[in-house]
Amino acid sequence: MVAFAAPQRDIEFLLFDLFGMESTWANTPALTDINADLARAVVNEGGRIASEVLAPLNQSGDEEGCHIDNGAVSVPKGFGAAFGELAQGGWLSLSGNPEFGGQGMPKTLSCVLEEMFYGSNSSLYLYGTLTVGAAMCIDAHGSETQKRDYLPKLYSGEWTGAMALTEAHAGTDLGIMRTRAEPINDAAVEGAYAITGTKIFISSGDHDMADNIVHLVLARLPDAPAGSKGISLFIVPKFLPTSDNDCGERNSFAAGSIEHKMGIRGSATCVINYDGATGFLLGEPHRGLAGMFTMMNYERLSIGIQGLGLSELAYQNAVTYARDRLQGRSPTGAQNPNGPADSLLVHPDVRRMLLTVRAYNEAGRAFALYVGQQLDQAKYAESAEDRAAAQSKVELLTPIAKAYLSDRGFDCTVLAQQVLGGHGYIGEWGMEQIVRDARIAQIYEGANGVQALDLIGRKMLRDGGVTAMALVAEMRETQAPAEFAAGLSAAIDSLAQATESVLARSKDDPALAGAVSVDYLELFGLVLYAWLWARMAASAPADEFGDNKRHTAKYFFARVLPRHLSLAASIDADASAVMDLPNDAF
Amino acid sequence: MVAFAAPQRDIEFLLFDLFGMESTWANTPALTDINADLARAVVNEGGRIASEVLAPLNQSGDEEGCHIDNGAVSVPKGFGAAFGELAQGGWLSLSGNPEFGGQGMPKTLSCVLEEMFYGSNSSLYLYGTLTVGAAMCIDAHGSETQKRDYLPKLYSGEWTGAMALTEAHAGTDLGIMRTRAEPINDAAVEGAYAITGTKIFISSGDHDMADNIVHLVLARLPDAPAGSKGISLFIVPKFLPTSDNDCGERNSFAAGSIEHKMGIRGSATCVINYDGATGFLLGEPHRGLAGMFTMMNYERLSIGIQGLGLSELAYQNAVTYARDRLQGRSPTGAQNPNGPADSLLVHPDVRRMLLTVRAYNEAGRAFALYVGQQLDQAKYAESAEDRAAAQSKVELLTPIAKAYLSDRGFDCTVLAQQVLGGHGYIGEWGMEQIVRDARIAQIYEGANGVQALDLIGRKMLRDGGVTAMALVAEMRETQAPAEFAAGLSAAIDSLAQATESVLARSKDDPALAGAVSVDYLELFGLVLYAWLWARMAASAPADEFGDNKRHTAKYFFARVLPRHLSLAASIDADASAVMDLPNDAF
Repeated sequence: MVAFAAPQRDIEFLLFDLFGMESTWANTPALTDINADLARAVVNEGGRIASEVLAPLNQSGDEEGCHIDNGAVSVPKGFGAAFGELAQGGWLSLSGNPEFGGQGMPKTLSCVLEEMFYGSNSSLYLYGTLTVGAAMCIDAHGSETQKRDYLPKLYSGEWTGAMALTEAHAGTDLGIMRTRAEPINDAAVEGAYAITGTKIFISSGDHDMADNIVHLVLARLPDAPAGSKGISLFIVPKFLPTSDNDCGERNSFAAGSIEHKMGIRGSATCVINYDGATGFLLGEPHRGLAGMFTMMNYERLSIGIQGLGLSELAYQNAVTYARDRLQGRSPTGAQNPNGPADSLLVHPDVRRMLLTVRAYNEAGRAFALYVGQQLDQAKYAESAEDRAAAQSKVELLTPIAKAYLSDRGFDCTVLAQQVLGGHGYIGEWGMEQIVRDARIAQIYEGANGVQALDLIGRKMLRDGGVTAMALVAEMRETQAPAEFAAGLSAAIDSLAQATESVLARSKDDPALAGAVSVDYLELFGLVLYAWLWARMAASAPADEFGDNKRHTAKYFFARVLPRHLSLAASIDADASAVMDLPNDAF
Repeated sequence: MVAFAAPQRDIEFLLFDLFGMESTWANTPALTDINADLARAVVNEGGRIASEVLAPLNQSGDEEGCHIDNGAVSVPKGFGAAFGELAQGGWLSLSGNPEFGGQGMPKTLSCVLEEMFYGSNSSLYLYGTLTVGAAMCIDAHGSETQKRDYLPKLYSGEWTGAMALTEAHAGTDLGIMRTRAEPINDAAVEGAYAITGTKIFISSGDHDMADNIVHLVLARLPDAPAGSKGISLFIVPKFLPTSDNDCGERNSFAAGSIEHKMGIRGSATCVINYDGATGFLLGEPHRGLAGMFTMMNYERLSIGIQGLGLSELAYQNAVTYARDRLQGRSPTGAQNPNGPADSLLVHPDVRRMLLTVRAYNEAGRAFALYVGQQLDQAKYAESAEDRAAAQSKVELLTPIAKAYLSDRGFDCTVLAQQVLGGHGYIGEWGMEQIVRDARIAQIYEGANGVQALDLIGRKMLRDGGVTAMALVAEMRETQAPAEFAAGLSAAIDSLAQATESVLARSKDDPALAGAVSVDYLELFGLVLYAWLWARMAASAPADEFGDNKRHTAKYFFARVLPRHLSLAASIDADASAVMDLPNDAF
């Protein structure tokens, strides 16, 4: 019963009014083909696919789930045809390298499409995400031959991708993984290895929607040093490619089982047993983790956007319910006096729930686009200096995008579910599935606590807060509308003080960063949202759409932003609050 | 893979050290039979039942769910025998009226048992809760004959109970319900009516674990005034009782279907069609809602405790995982240098998650007991004045107990799930079920937004804040340990100021109460927890257990309590932040 509609108007506002992408594209040599009309058409058609092709399979995919029979995995009914439509429409090659059949579109455009595809059917779109990610990794690290062998097939969606990192005992701590790669001396292809080991949690590891599935597998070479600096990356295709780019010999790995999960049940999450499977080294030996991390900035933003998309889906359907459901009377007098009751929309607390979701979603969409803009800058800016500055910002913002978008995404799906009361808990209404689906984005692609450690440790402390404080300075320059100026300024102060305080206190206390990291990330995200809300309120047009933006901005500043006060106070606590309780007392 | 252990030591600390129940019981004429030894034995045996009888069926019950065949509902395998053990052990008659076979135990004792029963198997224990609730309602409003006919069978668990309130179009707004009751003129029993209508969301509405199921049904008499003052309450048993208290004629109602829910899948949630079913008026005509609300204070506390119990279950299992799982190294130096990695327990952020859950759970247990104590006072205190004071406090605290315990319960199950990373998302690990099960407690028995409206509207504003400010004064009297005194005092100030501000601003703005109600309830709950933490820290013994209490108190004050700052700021906003956006703009 859940439906999805493209938030086209809001996307256009962000692209053109807030971020002025039209002139950016026009002034970027690699992107001069993109203009407002094209962008509008792409968003419009992507929205149609989301609403008409992907969304109708969302609930049935969840109900049916995936199946495994003798090592072969099949997806829910209808997924194959819909995935084919996604692939044939070119939606998997949007950001691909034009030399090998990609469309070379900017991230600012692909990230609004991702939101719609995740929002309408996260399970189905994940097969696409993994494909896009694998292609990106091969494009960044592969030889010309590897690119030629794999990229066109991945861009066309005839072949799909999968990433094999986790082992049963090695999740966040990939350094302790055991899968091994041994050189095949008589291999026809140079750089061929026999891969042996078992990987778990492999999304899209097997399925029946593509001719071939290209696994990127982390494994250890025989001479590998211990730990995370002894891990190499391998291309391990289900079928070895022939010289004319067809599927050849079946490789020796298979799905041992599929997981029964809380959500994204249409996505096949496989245990994969590699039994001396043929793999081809991708990039340098022992540099596999670094290789994998090349695309992490994109993938992590993408998973944040999954949370956003599902929150948008939840918002739309909660609003529909609230509009239709008649229950009780407005505290300010009946608004539907001839009906048995007023609609839920008249109740202040229902409005509070919906406005919270709306305020987070609209800021989240702006934030995702902002990070996309920085990714494009890091890739396309003319000067090396601009590219480097954008790259630093991307690295700082990526863990925030992944964690803050997915945390707020989950919380918002729960709030939207609450609007439906008891119906929110019943499967047929579809809201409880959205909650279950949204939960995974906080966990995979690096759990959100790990994102917070990445932000505070690798990103903030490592450069002595330089990038963070540069962003703070950038935020301070924004001319906020008068009614929001004091609120924004206080929130930025909170972030600046927290940053300086963490920098100072971490010097003497190695546990401090981890003790306050999640609160710090949340504070950073919240202040970014406040900044973007101030900018949106300032750029909003003088029409009904603009009025609604300003109303929502007002809600955000009055009711959401005050959270910075408690986060700042919590960050002030020292690590002993977290460290004092002895391990055996838990 | 989930296990449950009774938090016996903490329960004893609360009963005897914090609340001094032993002397209360000794000085209460109706409770002189209860002493510390008996209480310990009851808690111990209840804990055993929870761990050994209920917990082992928790996951299998979720996997199998309930079945319906031709209008007859069956429960998951093993539930019948376990429910029989619960019933035969007398666990459903604990708080029952001794005149009819109940044990007359105080709520202070039964609420710690409820926590364990819900924690070990919420689905299964719900059949018990509904039975206890139906008995309480009949005891409060029934005729002597009705009590004699139903109470002994309900106390023994041979018969079970169900409450039929909701209709498809009437949930929170029960005033618009349509089920009708027409007098049966030639009925053998006086006060018999033919009940016709369809009710939804009827927990335990049908199942195969008891000889009879006693429905309490809300319906309208032919001469009923419109709205909520025209609703009467009826006893509608599945089998009409014979004169010798056996099951007689099958009544004409049946389950039309069962719901497929996000969680509590072992609990049968039925659509029930009453087709001229015979019902017996319970209490006064048109006073059915009031009758139903008599037991609401107990039931709502009970549902809050469901959230608490599931959070305790989640905590225990997350700790077990964190202890066993080796991943990464402590930031302060390897703690397991001979192993491949340290346990998750060394990581500050994992400790933060676990401490948050622990701090909420231990305060929540104290809070539930505090409310239980007030319920006992309202029933057993010697002077009418003391009973009335306790009753006012119960009415104020009940919506907080229901909503704050269940909201924190859900949030904490999500946090605990996060500790397991990817495994938290996989069914076999059991954590995702706990999250799904905990979600319902925020929704049923009056959604938490409705609890907040009840608190701020019916409870706080209606008496001009007198009861709330009396509780504030009581909290101010507490001598907190020096390190927590300033924090507690600031939090109490926040609550006092918010209360006065809402009182003042509501006079001119009918939408204000609803606009800030949820934040106000959360602030109230948080400040109560701070108060209880201060009291627990002050009462904790000078031993390891006491040290751990103090460490957890320190965590609560440093990292959890600061939230009062943002809640207070959010409550300061006026209703326009919520009301400005036009209905059609959502």
